[in-house]
Amino acid sequence: MQDKLNRIAVIGGGSWATAIVKMLSDNLLEKEIYWWMRSEDAAQHIRKYKHNPNYLSSVEIKVDADHIYTDIRKAIANAQILLLNVPAAFLKDAFADLTLEDLKGKKIISAIKGIVPDENQIIAEFIHHKYEIPFQDIVVISGPCHAEEVALEKLSYLTIASPDMQLAELFASQISNRYIKTIVSDDIYGTEYAAVLKNIYAVASGICHGIGYGDNFQAVLISNAIREIGRFVAAIHPINRDIKESAYLGDLMVTAYSQFSRNRTFGNMIGKGYTVKSAQLEMNMIAEGYYAVNSIHQINKIYKVNMPIARAVYAILYEKHSPQIEMKLLTEVLT
Amino acid sequence: MQDKLNRIAVIGGGSWATAIVKMLSDNLLEKEIYWWMRSEDAAQHIRKYKHNPNYLSSVEIKVDADHIYTDIRKAIANAQILLLNVPAAFLKDAFADLTLEDLKGKKIISAIKGIVPDENQIIAEFIHHKYEIPFQDIVVISGPCHAEEVALEKLSYLTIASPDMQLAELFASQISNRYIKTIVSDDIYGTEYAAVLKNIYAVASGICHGIGYGDNFQAVLISNAIREIGRFVAAIHPINRDIKESAYLGDLMVTAYSQFSRNRTFGNMIGKGYTVKSAQLEMNMIAEGYYAVNSIHQINKIYKVNMPIARAVYAILYEKHSPQIEMKLLTEVLT
Repeated sequence: MQDKLNRIAVIGGGSWATAIVKMLSDNLLEKEIYWWMRSEDAAQHIRKYKHNPNYLSSVEIKVDADHIYTDIRKAIANAQILLLNVPAAFLKDAFADLTLEDLKGKKIISAIKGIVPDENQIIAEFIHHKYEIPFQDIVVISGPCHAEEVALEKLSYLTIASPDMQLAELFASQISNRYIKTIVSDDIYGTEYAAVLKNIYAVASGICHGIGYGDNFQAVLISNAIREIGRFVAAIHPINRDIKESAYLGDLMVTAYSQFSRNRTFGNMIGKGYTVKSAQLEMNMIAEGYYAVNSIHQINKIYKVNMPIARAVYAILYEKHSPQIEMKLLTEVLT
Repeated sequence: MQDKLNRIAVIGGGSWATAIVKMLSDNLLEKEIYWWMRSEDAAQHIRKYKHNPNYLSSVEIKVDADHIYTDIRKAIANAQILLLNVPAAFLKDAFADLTLEDLKGKKIISAIKGIVPDENQIIAEFIHHKYEIPFQDIVVISGPCHAEEVALEKLSYLTIASPDMQLAELFASQISNRYIKTIVSDDIYGTEYAAVLKNIYAVASGICHGIGYGDNFQAVLISNAIREIGRFVAAIHPINRDIKESAYLGDLMVTAYSQFSRNRTFGNMIGKGYTVKSAQLEMNMIAEGYYAVNSIHQINKIYKVNMPIARAVYAILYEKHSPQIEMKLLTEVLT
């Protein structure tokens, strides 16, 4: 039996981090949650007003004011679990001041959906290799889950994956409540990669929509996308999994069919003729799928999985190919 | 090699029939298409104005005026292929005047998505058993495809299934064009049943939406639904198929995620508290999923496949169970 492990530091101040803090505070005491974010303004606002000014601002934050940090070493000092929730591209930066010693003995839960740039590693791999955390002490959380619906307490299912099923069960019990159900899995590779890949297919959906393809084609695109995800994760980590489960297919659908997905919006702008740079400027943020497709492209040089959709998105975003021509070529190979 | 078989009678005057007439007329001559519909008013309008007054009325009809019929025996007399496109519940009625002799030697293509009431047979089975048409002469067409997008010439993929792959290929060539791509399959049972079942899950989606469940739960529901479809068709007709293909998963997604699906709209009203009767009166039509869930319930008494979503929809529509309670119970068993 695991210890109670109920001192959890949440790393990151965005909407998904805010949603997770909300879930945790249903089961843990105000003193058991530690919350680190980069912005001192946001931290002060939360300490004073108990609401995150920037994300899910309707959510009441039930964390002790003294436990809101902008110094990561202080934030994690007394925590048994670190719950990572910064963009993948920012993880190295957030962890810059931390040493192996700081992280020693702690469990790591990743709610990040992305690949560490340059390393081309999923979060579990990166944490394991760089910080010598055993895979047994690593957990991955995945959806299908929009943070906005958690704020509204709409019923949502989370998948909690770890090689240590007891640890996964423990964390599942810490995060489940009246509106959050959990599914436990031992597939950290499949869960992380599927969560990364779905953003690429949300970009593809957006590109097709921007060009003028309709719902009939969207259904063909996504039914091909889940097969592409299935092939890729089977090549990377061949275990017995059903890719139609919620963590894989459900997560893909909730993103690719969302009108609010940043990745889909970014793709839509590309399909309408914006350049990558102008779309990013216009959105004032970077869609995760933009980085993901490059990382997957690099990783797939080794595995050589047939991924025509990801290949088309890569060609459009990184090789400046015409969205119209790439998608037309894609329609010839989808089934 | 098949004969050219290019004299085709389309049976039915609805939106999907109109879409199929449009596709056929891209490849066949005006004299090669015969079109039967029940309404003499509609037939006269089409003969005179070359547009269907009731469905997809923007589509120009390129069929010879003398080939628009309300007498089914005349409509099929010179046709080599009958393309069936009436609601399943109306098929017996439409065929009431026809004998085995009338249909002898003709190929039958079903674009119907439904089960023949009382018989609890899919269309291919019914046609085979009642009219002694060999399965080799039967073809099934399925989506994912909204008729409205065909009218707009948005790229769509159709699946053409037949035990006779040459016949399937032939018909595929008759119906494909610049905006219609075809996928050929030998799985008539899986294709028909999946097309029927998806309407049940579209009703379920609507019910959940009407109650107040959000997109996160919708993704879980549909990822469970495709597994339910997979289990059912594997029990009915166990062949090697990938249920993630467009004809199965794509068709499910295009319907369950459509805001315009009649089945979803019907479910939504049930979820909001309408009775079945008042929802049907309000909509002035009957959602196919309403009949489908009863037929599947009867058929599944033999196969006993675990189908918790279809079971919940049946209980709500036929046993007057509370939508709130049934869906709450369902949330306990989905994964």
